[in-house]
Amino acid sequence: MANNSAHPAQRATAQHFLPGGHPLSTQHSPLPPLARLSLNQMTTQRWSLREAADGCARAGLGWIGVWRDKLADAGVEAGAKLIRDAGLRVSGLCRGGMFPAATTAERAERIEDNRRAIAEAAAIGTSVLVLVCGAAPDKDIDAARKQIAAGIATVADEAKAAGVVLAIEPLHPAFAATRSAIATLGEALDIADEIDHPNVQVVIDVYHVWWDPQLYAQIARSAGRIAAYHVNDWLTTGGDPLTTRGMMGDGVIELRRIRHAVEAAGYRDGPIEVEIFNPTWWEMPGDDVLALMKERYRDHV
Amino acid sequence: MANNSAHPAQRATAQHFLPGGHPLSTQHSPLPPLARLSLNQMTTQRWSLREAADGCARAGLGWIGVWRDKLADAGVEAGAKLIRDAGLRVSGLCRGGMFPAATTAERAERIEDNRRAIAEAAAIGTSVLVLVCGAAPDKDIDAARKQIAAGIATVADEAKAAGVVLAIEPLHPAFAATRSAIATLGEALDIADEIDHPNVQVVIDVYHVWWDPQLYAQIARSAGRIAAYHVNDWLTTGGDPLTTRGMMGDGVIELRRIRHAVEAAGYRDGPIEVEIFNPTWWEMPGDDVLALMKERYRDHV
Repeated sequence: MANNSAHPAQRATAQHFLPGGHPLSTQHSPLPPLARLSLNQMTTQRWSLREAADGCARAGLGWIGVWRDKLADAGVEAGAKLIRDAGLRVSGLCRGGMFPAATTAERAERIEDNRRAIAEAAAIGTSVLVLVCGAAPDKDIDAARKQIAAGIATVADEAKAAGVVLAIEPLHPAFAATRSAIATLGEALDIADEIDHPNVQVVIDVYHVWWDPQLYAQIARSAGRIAAYHVNDWLTTGGDPLTTRGMMGDGVIELRRIRHAVEAAGYRDGPIEVEIFNPTWWEMPGDDVLALMKERYRDHV
Repeated sequence: MANNSAHPAQRATAQHFLPGGHPLSTQHSPLPPLARLSLNQMTTQRWSLREAADGCARAGLGWIGVWRDKLADAGVEAGAKLIRDAGLRVSGLCRGGMFPAATTAERAERIEDNRRAIAEAAAIGTSVLVLVCGAAPDKDIDAARKQIAAGIATVADEAKAAGVVLAIEPLHPAFAATRSAIATLGEALDIADEIDHPNVQVVIDVYHVWWDPQLYAQIARSAGRIAAYHVNDWLTTGGDPLTTRGMMGDGVIELRRIRHAVEAAGYRDGPIEVEIFNPTWWEMPGDDVLALMKERYRDHV
């Protein structure tokens, strides 16, 4: 089912190519087409999956990024149906990963959980399973990295059989102790190189990678392996990086420059997910968040 | 005065070489000698310079890392004298840097401030001026990096004339939007390579670099250019990275492994500064903090 000739979103939705999409072109659009915009559910954390799907439909969006806890609340089959009924496609499922653990038994459990996540991704019709790879259970970050590579390799063929790409998301180094020992795009690509499997690719989320002096070189290196693209912003107001993500335009990230680089690397028509962990937006009515998100997407992404 | 044949602290204090120091050896000690321990004043933020110097003397320390605001409060000459009177040497002055700014006039002011910092470092007898390089005034991080390199190059000869090394401190990427566009040790070394001046070196602070997949390769690359080494820990409890640094042993950093790598790169006898920004320790009586710091240094560094 899967092959490496186009990014997963393109493969999964080839019949839906947007007007203006030019897969073979090296051009990028000065403004991002609204049809690429996707709501990652984390941005409207208080909404159930049904509320989020209905909200996307009201806002005229075509895509949604789904979280597994919300999907579990809805039920996988019921969730898949309500997404379809809202006329939405799924840009990705968050999240698999979390491979490192202190014991063999725990690591085996984590791999089982990834198998469930692959099945859930297939059930809701997305080819992208986002991997938040996990942190060291103790202090040995290099051992954690080996466990991550081993975990991904273990399930890669199963992902392929299900039509799902395992999309390694390098997380900001602020999360290296708690969420992901994979802290740069270069490192994610090194693991993908090592495993060398068409269904092992990467996610680029601007929040995690914007600061990297190697960013543009590594985006270019990602060509053909970008499974998903996430946007938001980095604020200068400080606080816990986990819950202070910014709305596009409120921070320092060179969003347009990065989008153009991602497009130059071949990710030209796939969905662009807005993923913002921040109580400021969680407390705002979801419809208002989506209206602002659309405006900021047009003006800044 | 300065040359590149030994690290600055060794050069500045050659007459004080510690028993057991073997500058030409490739061996490292299984336990760090207490005589290398230095208190960075930020760890006891509520103490004045006099209180900190007296506290170090009571604790039997030989080194102190000084902050400019505390030095200004004491007066530079008076501060230099009270440090000498306490029998201490200065492991470094924090901080110069902050080069990027929106206008030429502002950038010129920043450079003037670095000239004052060089003079202050010389006045208190340290060869190490720690540079926190500064962040972009807007969104253009590459432009900020160029302004940083230009600023350092502008004052490098003046630093050399004063016997001071400009020690670029890569800061954790969590601070890339507010404090330093230089976010990795590799990037700091790239700038040092570009300027190619014996008085432009680097600081390695474990808090900022521990997560980096290139850490050990870049430490090796730093050989002969490590001007200072700072220790603390990264906690897994979250919060604002600015004020949640951990005491050694409370977090995930592989402190012993990193010290050995730093020693293998030639920094074998220079001071090891404990720098912890955290209200938990600021609120504790300073003498208690120093007692704990000594214990944790022996057990974990």
